Amino acid sequence: MDHLKEKTLHSEKLFSGRIIDLYLEDVELPNGKTSKREIIKHPGAVAVIAVTEENKIIMVRQYRKAMERNLVEIPAGKLEKGEEPIVTAKRELQEETGYTCDELEPLISFYTSPGFADELVHVFIAKGLRKDTEEHQLDEDEFVDLLEVSLEEALELIDKKEIYDAKTAYAVQYLQMQTLFRK
Amino acid sequence: MDHLKEKTLHSEKLFSGRIIDLYLEDVELPNGKTSKREIIKHPGAVAVIAVTEENKIIMVRQYRKAMERNLVEIPAGKLEKGEEPIVTAKRELQEETGYTCDELEPLISFYTSPGFADELVHVFIAKGLRKDTEEHQLDEDEFVDLLEVSLEEALELIDKKEIYDAKTAYAVQYLQMQTLFRK
Repeated sequence: MDHLKEKTLHSEKLFSGRIIDLYLEDVELPNGKTSKREIIKHPGAVAVIAVTEENKIIMVRQYRKAMERNLVEIPAGKLEKGEEPIVTAKRELQEETGYTCDELEPLISFYTSPGFADELVHVFIAKGLRKDTEEHQLDEDEFVDLLEVSLEEALELIDKKEIYDAKTAYAVQYLQMQTLFRK
Repeated sequence: MDHLKEKTLHSEKLFSGRIIDLYLEDVELPNGKTSKREIIKHPGAVAVIAVTEENKIIMVRQYRKAMERNLVEIPAGKLEKGEEPIVTAKRELQEETGYTCDELEPLISFYTSPGFADELVHVFIAKGLRKDTEEHQLDEDEFVDLLEVSLEEALELIDKKEIYDAKTAYAVQYLQMQTLFRK
């Protein structure tokens, strides 16, 4: 399927950040013409679907500077360099929520914004979840509220646009589908 | 819920592109300390779930430069300035696939990468879909293959990581759930 390929003629790194890098690329299109592509490189991230024995979904509310507002999301975090996604997922779950789990089962991975970014999110399901006795420990620039919500409450939070991001919408829809399967 | 808010101390625009802008911001955290935020501003986008009378999902395969590979996605496109999402959705569907529809029903909107970007994707469902007689007309830097796949084929494409982005994964899961509802 090389008839769609865009060939890199020139790539310039315009910004190197703590989380993202920005590249501006000149490309040759399949018809021989040229164009520019604005590309964000991101280390990737993990997200965890964690449901308690009482059938409550564990969520975190946090301030998202890009939108200048709070969002309610499933626990998530970016990959550290060289770290296996499953290791990041276990750590982020514990740090953000104070919960640990016996097992993390990979559910799906997806690119979040393929039009301009290479961020890949790996979604896991936590099995054998339990509240840790230790305090949860956040990164020093991370402030979150812990929430435990039923599926019905999660659907209401989607209606109210408090849950308002792709990975969490996917997770809630997944749990909704599991409920249908059981019926 | 102002206890999570991050106050902007300084905001600098580092890049202004055709699709994205990059800002570097100094913020004051809830505990009074400061940190930096890397923020991508994006005009937002639309995506369309379009299913033919033969129960085939309309998809497009295109080269995604950020990943250096082809992806199979539901038809989508970025918002033009001042354009209503539903207008963009109707146009993108026709331009990318050659299909028109009687109605576009809003399904859900979500932020794709809330950790660093404000891109909001509005997902619509096309009703009264029909193949247009006119040729479909792509942007001059846009090259796509048109695909029509069954739900089963879409699930296989997810397994093969050819469908590999959040909005399309959400759309396929949505159609899977609708099928369960009907059973």
